Amino acid sequence: MTPPLILITNDDGYAAAGIQTLAAAVAQLGEVIIVAPDGPRSGAACGISSYTPVSYRRVQPGIFACSGTPVDCVKLACEHIVPRRPDLILSGINHGDNASISVHYSGTMGAVLEGCMKGIPSIGLSLYLRRGESYAQHPVSADTLSAIGRLCGNVLAAGLPCDVCLNINIPQSDHFGGWQVARQARGQWSAEWQATPDPHAFTLTGTFTDLEPEATDTDFAALRSGRCSIVPVSVDMTAHAAMPQITTLLQTEQ
Amino acid sequence: MTPPLILITNDDGYAAAGIQTLAAAVAQLGEVIIVAPDGPRSGAACGISSYTPVSYRRVQPGIFACSGTPVDCVKLACEHIVPRRPDLILSGINHGDNASISVHYSGTMGAVLEGCMKGIPSIGLSLYLRRGESYAQHPVSADTLSAIGRLCGNVLAAGLPCDVCLNINIPQSDHFGGWQVARQARGQWSAEWQATPDPHAFTLTGTFTDLEPEATDTDFAALRSGRCSIVPVSVDMTAHAAMPQITTLLQTEQ
Repeated sequence: MTPPLILITNDDGYAAAGIQTLAAAVAQLGEVIIVAPDGPRSGAACGISSYTPVSYRRVQPGIFACSGTPVDCVKLACEHIVPRRPDLILSGINHGDNASISVHYSGTMGAVLEGCMKGIPSIGLSLYLRRGESYAQHPVSADTLSAIGRLCGNVLAAGLPCDVCLNINIPQSDHFGGWQVARQARGQWSAEWQATPDPHAFTLTGTFTDLEPEATDTDFAALRSGRCSIVPVSVDMTAHAAMPQITTLLQTEQ
Repeated sequence: MTPPLILITNDDGYAAAGIQTLAAAVAQLGEVIIVAPDGPRSGAACGISSYTPVSYRRVQPGIFACSGTPVDCVKLACEHIVPRRPDLILSGINHGDNASISVHYSGTMGAVLEGCMKGIPSIGLSLYLRRGESYAQHPVSADTLSAIGRLCGNVLAAGLPCDVCLNINIPQSDHFGGWQVARQARGQWSAEWQATPDPHAFTLTGTFTDLEPEATDTDFAALRSGRCSIVPVSVDMTAHAAMPQITTLLQTEQ
């Protein structure tokens, strides 16, 4: 029988520590192929290369470096690199969390949404790090990696709901603290620009505020309690509950 | 009384025809300031410039060109360019639609989501164009621009629901065909890469398929019937309805 094909990508680049850890954690589940950016692409979101060709090269057997964004990696892998349709797409383990509204900016989650839009079960994994901390200082614990492997096995067996992918965030811990299915926390970035010598040029930085610090059902709440958060993420961004209010807004218009 | 401040951006660049049209359509509602990319940024999604400084320059009074992404434009405008907090953020009019899953790739909608995450009522506007068609060939009709102006006036007066922004798509028509509050259509891109002389390099292209061609309540259905679609878009991407199924998936895990 043909083994399941697992495509792995990220937004930190094919050589990042997190992607190597992830590949090892799921190696026993099937055939693993890495197609990842040739360097860091943090904050790439669902960005695509609209204006320049995207190229790829084989780094070693089963590992390909791509000149594009994480979404480009998934698109190019599926159409031109992998030998058959992937059964599972993983992205990460990102060096830094993608909880709360970071899901919107995250190249890690961009790749996951792309896989999901192609109808392939897709999961993003990110490790919470404080500013300046490195992945090497806080590696994901062995039992957490085992739990991730078991979860991926379950997803290979059972699939995921249509048009839904998973955003997993991992707290800093030397042991697996359990899973918590959670919702995306409300959050906000402020003080986002650092001055440079040029008074008209600035570098992105910022302070994140969890706007629901007392909540117990959000991704950040899970991280605070030492659990790995799993947010099911929807391709459909429609705010269905808001539709009547928008219709009312138009009443004076028609 | 201080007039409302309207910040306008896009992903086609400050000099694009669509942004000039939009600025004119809302000029009577308040003070308009354009802070837009210095060139095209299609497909930038919610991307941010994580690795390079972002700079801006004044092109003429009230118009600023920014070296970053559409999201960078909103972040930089709010913190360093506009004189006070904007009352409304508009993005567009994009040269090409952002219906269905294009909301994920769209730099136009990236800027809109950013405004919404800052708690500012935010609206994206995009014109449906077939491949190779230009905005100049299919300008938005005068009565459609009037309807957009009235809608923006209503939003300035009434606001939008918390964490919800609007994705408006405009069909090609020489008259305003009415609004339709709609949901995001299910869609899929295929055949996404065009070959180049380099066998390992490809250019993005693709064929879009509306997966719900018989639906009447989607954004694409509205466009097909000659109406402007309005999809309320949620910052919260949690697939709330899928949470029990994900919990079940974990039962064998804990």
